[in-house]
Amino acid sequence: MRFTAFTDYALRVMIYLALDPGDRATIKDIADDYGISKNHLMKVVNVLAKGGYVSANRGPGGGLELARPADEITVGEIVRLTEDTLQLVECFGADNQCSITPACTLKGIFNESLQAMFGVLDAYSVQDLVKRRTELKKLL
Amino acid sequence: MRFTAFTDYALRVMIYLALDPGDRATIKDIADDYGISKNHLMKVVNVLAKGGYVSANRGPGGGLELARPADEITVGEIVRLTEDTLQLVECFGADNQCSITPACTLKGIFNESLQAMFGVLDAYSVQDLVKRRTELKKLL
Repeated sequence: MRFTAFTDYALRVMIYLALDPGDRATIKDIADDYGISKNHLMKVVNVLAKGGYVSANRGPGGGLELARPADEITVGEIVRLTEDTLQLVECFGADNQCSITPACTLKGIFNESLQAMFGVLDAYSVQDLVKRRTELKKLL
Repeated sequence: MRFTAFTDYALRVMIYLALDPGDRATIKDIADDYGISKNHLMKVVNVLAKGGYVSANRGPGGGLELARPADEITVGEIVRLTEDTLQLVECFGADNQCSITPACTLKGIFNESLQAMFGVLDAYSVQDLVKRRTELKKLL
């Protein structure tokens, strides 16, 4: 079990933009500073923009910024937006073929475990991710 | 994010064997009753046997049974045994290249979320999975 690189990169973008709320960054800035693929980041930024988390301003002086205050965006929201599935096992999906599903308690247990995980992720905001702002900026 | 089919099948095997603690089942029985691949199940049973959760007895009258009482095996144990990774994001691994890791709080948050998830999975035993024994047996 792991999160996708897409989710990982989305959170890195949010951290980057939360570090300098006044500034506008380009995808190239973010890709270069993290040393990750610009192409991959473009897709990530598109999803964040469509989700209402990032604003993209075109033209001279344009660039990316957070569309909402960092302390009003939870880590859980971003993970829910960017993970391609949260169907932990087959019986979470519409194409489930497991014969014991009607009497099985496992789905409820897995659901409870997922709620517990997101209970933690929803308790932290993007602002919490940039608490060590000065150190983070030195590393980028 | 999802668990592997390997984990899903491992838990189905544990449920199957917990339903009739006195009986011994073959891999063919389990594969046929769930309608899943016998080859896939053989690998799953091997891992469960090596992990000390299933005993395989050869020869006439042989077969598979739980190696420990169902109420002494947690769901969390099985998931830890069978998931190929619990490295939620790159910085959990040895090959991490994320430049901001030294000042990033995200790893701690993800770790806390994983603990919360396993806090739930460790609170349930294999015995809890077969509470609806009569109904489960009818479905197999």
